[in-house]
Amino acid sequence: MLASFRSLTQAAPRFPHPRFLAQPAIQRDSRFKQISAADVQAFRQILGDAAVITNADDLTAFNVDWMNRYRGASTIALKPTSTDHVSQIMQYCNHRLLAVVPQGGNTGLVGGSVPVFDELILSLSAMNQIEHLDETSGVVTTQAGVVLEALDNYVGAAGYRVPLDLGAKGSCQIGGNVATNAGGSRFVRYGPLRASVVGMEAVLPDGRVFDAMTTVRKDNTGYDLKQLMIGAEGTLGVITRLAIACPMKSSCVDTMVVHVTSSERISPLLRLARQSLGEVLSAIEYMDSSSVRMADTNLSHVSDPLSIPDDPQHSLVLIECAGSNAEHNREKLEAFLEAAFEQELVADGVIAESETQSNELWELRESLPEAVLKAGAAATLKYDVSVPIAHFNEMIDVAKERVKDLGAVQVCGWGHIGDENLHLNVAIQDDTQKDTAQLRLEPWVYEYVSGVGGSISAEHGLGVMKAGAIGYSKGDIAVDVMRTIKDVLDVNGICNPYKVLTTSSQ
Amino acid sequence: MLASFRSLTQAAPRFPHPRFLAQPAIQRDSRFKQISAADVQAFRQILGDAAVITNADDLTAFNVDWMNRYRGASTIALKPTSTDHVSQIMQYCNHRLLAVVPQGGNTGLVGGSVPVFDELILSLSAMNQIEHLDETSGVVTTQAGVVLEALDNYVGAAGYRVPLDLGAKGSCQIGGNVATNAGGSRFVRYGPLRASVVGMEAVLPDGRVFDAMTTVRKDNTGYDLKQLMIGAEGTLGVITRLAIACPMKSSCVDTMVVHVTSSERISPLLRLARQSLGEVLSAIEYMDSSSVRMADTNLSHVSDPLSIPDDPQHSLVLIECAGSNAEHNREKLEAFLEAAFEQELVADGVIAESETQSNELWELRESLPEAVLKAGAAATLKYDVSVPIAHFNEMIDVAKERVKDLGAVQVCGWGHIGDENLHLNVAIQDDTQKDTAQLRLEPWVYEYVSGVGGSISAEHGLGVMKAGAIGYSKGDIAVDVMRTIKDVLDVNGICNPYKVLTTSSQ
Repeated sequence: MLASFRSLTQAAPRFPHPRFLAQPAIQRDSRFKQISAADVQAFRQILGDAAVITNADDLTAFNVDWMNRYRGASTIALKPTSTDHVSQIMQYCNHRLLAVVPQGGNTGLVGGSVPVFDELILSLSAMNQIEHLDETSGVVTTQAGVVLEALDNYVGAAGYRVPLDLGAKGSCQIGGNVATNAGGSRFVRYGPLRASVVGMEAVLPDGRVFDAMTTVRKDNTGYDLKQLMIGAEGTLGVITRLAIACPMKSSCVDTMVVHVTSSERISPLLRLARQSLGEVLSAIEYMDSSSVRMADTNLSHVSDPLSIPDDPQHSLVLIECAGSNAEHNREKLEAFLEAAFEQELVADGVIAESETQSNELWELRESLPEAVLKAGAAATLKYDVSVPIAHFNEMIDVAKERVKDLGAVQVCGWGHIGDENLHLNVAIQDDTQKDTAQLRLEPWVYEYVSGVGGSISAEHGLGVMKAGAIGYSKGDIAVDVMRTIKDVLDVNGICNPYKVLTTSSQ
Repeated sequence: MLASFRSLTQAAPRFPHPRFLAQPAIQRDSRFKQISAADVQAFRQILGDAAVITNADDLTAFNVDWMNRYRGASTIALKPTSTDHVSQIMQYCNHRLLAVVPQGGNTGLVGGSVPVFDELILSLSAMNQIEHLDETSGVVTTQAGVVLEALDNYVGAAGYRVPLDLGAKGSCQIGGNVATNAGGSRFVRYGPLRASVVGMEAVLPDGRVFDAMTTVRKDNTGYDLKQLMIGAEGTLGVITRLAIACPMKSSCVDTMVVHVTSSERISPLLRLARQSLGEVLSAIEYMDSSSVRMADTNLSHVSDPLSIPDDPQHSLVLIECAGSNAEHNREKLEAFLEAAFEQELVADGVIAESETQSNELWELRESLPEAVLKAGAAATLKYDVSVPIAHFNEMIDVAKERVKDLGAVQVCGWGHIGDENLHLNVAIQDDTQKDTAQLRLEPWVYEYVSGVGGSISAEHGLGVMKAGAIGYSKGDIAVDVMRTIKDVLDVNGICNPYKVLTTSSQ
């Protein structure tokens, strides 16, 4: 097993200047002006005083990401309430050469939503109106600053659900979700978020309002430009409004957690789940024994329901079935479990008998990021990658091996099996070991992923963290074309600079 | 009901120069060179003699679309077998200023895949190798010229299905499907084709090979440029290879056709189907009484299984359920039918008891385009639009009203109810009435669709037919951005000119 990665680490790194390491060597782009008193006054005239934040204390929450890993030094945050506001702001900033970072719920993990230097912060949080749900088509129109959970509750009242769910749902915003093409645990059922975005309004870097706010599911009239905005992480403009096609909510949901005793059984388990659960399979999530132990140890409100051993081969898999007929769901689930036991794919399992129990099982899965944060107070290195499932365990094992002599460093992994998406996490308790741990893991992680044809960012995006590492997942020509498009749509480069693509001027 | 469209027709047309009318007033772009003997020789050196077609008889099939509505005058068609071939061809053409039209199965309905003048035809039909199916992830990699049905059969043998199905499956090619973001009857279950394309290789207009051939489902590393190519109808480059995520094939499929006696019952029927069939609903297709009658009358191999009356309020709806458990499917289907009868949403129905019967029901739906062609030998006007379901019947009624005094003109409609996608068809038997019929219907169709927030091309694309009408579905700024991107990626404008976007130089 180990041979395959060893040859990778011996290979010359494809990326000669690893600027994604501990302190990215990014220089402030000198083309950008600093915010002046006259600028502040201009913004107050556009937005009113209350929506212009310049107080240092108030600005802290906007300048720092929730992992406390990236910290900007912006002197101003704006909270527009309308598309027209955003348009005026962008027009002004483009004219005055002020760099702008759009910010949603600020729950990203790659430093994409906070300033790197003194970029103006454009917070969408006051654009939080849900406009309309078409109860026949299930298409909801909304402003971009609406919190995901609020949107899900809103459409839920009419029998629909947002085709996206993730741990940060209580604070992330739908505009940010779309700007980063968020993945999450419903991906396996509903596909990528970009597939459900049927309409979009966005403000381009020069202030022009790009209006593609259709609410029909099929529209093949020209290039689907909103797809460019989806996943551009705010570097091509600011998403202000959205129309999202929502599927009907299933009337019956079953949740179970099973204990898998060998990493080699994960792939056949997935295949069996797809076969026997078929159309009711709505989530299949992986948690290795280390992450389960970290949650069990560090968090009082969750526990391992199956008390799995502390052994890297062992893991828990959470499976959710959602359908329109409770009996059918249960029959499929039982047939699946029976076959899984018969084929010795699972050793034990627990099925939630109530919504409360179901929530408890999900709570374990969703608390893992928090558990890791608590396990490593000094720093957490997070890698969100796509690799074939067969490589999940190998990656975790090798990562452990690489940092094991550093003492209090805990490595664990979890992810979305159906999407081949692994979240590799490294919790470091001693701050002085952070850089060493990172040097041991990077560029190894990126080389490994690239070597097996995966993606170095499955669902978190590139942000500032991985902007310099794009070459591990995208070829030179693709990057050139991206840069061409960025340059032609954001002529002055003011829109979320230093993110996604590094530029030659930096 | 009629009031709403009347006000629309009175409004000033948004598009002042309707170049989509009978004979589009397109001028050949004088920048493009004509094919010389030296060019032919150069292509022979790249491809070998057999792959360079210059014989007038052989060229006919490449120059004319299958509706016999659009006819180019190209003097050369090339059949490359590798990406390298395509790259060399495009580099040569870009250098020599030769315009190129990429062509797949040539089954499009908007004239997108045939030359308008003497563009070189680049046929992908010899790039027809299926490369690999990953049996764990269900991702298939393939060359672009593979016929859809062949691809479906290939993955079908391993228990998967291509998430796309349409009437032309026996001849359309997957590259063309992706280039036009084809819709079809599986859209309601699997969403847009673009959601399932995980990897792409394409040759840019200047010959550079854009390699994004990943096979992982999640990849958020920079702008998703392949999304730009999807639906660009070959105007931004030539798709050469693809990786497509396939869902597992359902082990049990039930097909039924029901008789709906009033157009107002279609929306509640769809809602009921979504609720009671839930996750097993895999197609829900509409056929108005006129289209059913046309098929029944003009085609010997299909018939109306429920003998519905010749009344515009009446229609047939085909419903397919696909799942992993035959009993569950059937129970859901029966519960649905019971409720549908109880709520008086359907008057009659027939359920296929065998695969043969199921094929017969589908055959009726898929033969409608052919039936219309036979009904109107002189010409058929086809409008593929997205509008809320409530407008389906109104559009058909008004269209009938507008052309009823023209004699032998038959109007009918069918479509994908779950996607709000209506195919309005007008069969004209007398060639001299064609232009009059078209003038009565255009720009009315486009104005109507625009007025209700729909799309003037739901799944067929713009091609040459609707290039000038883009303004009905897209705003000026969106069109400007499209043009900006086209100009920067295809500097010489050689890639499928006169399609999708008209240019100022024309």
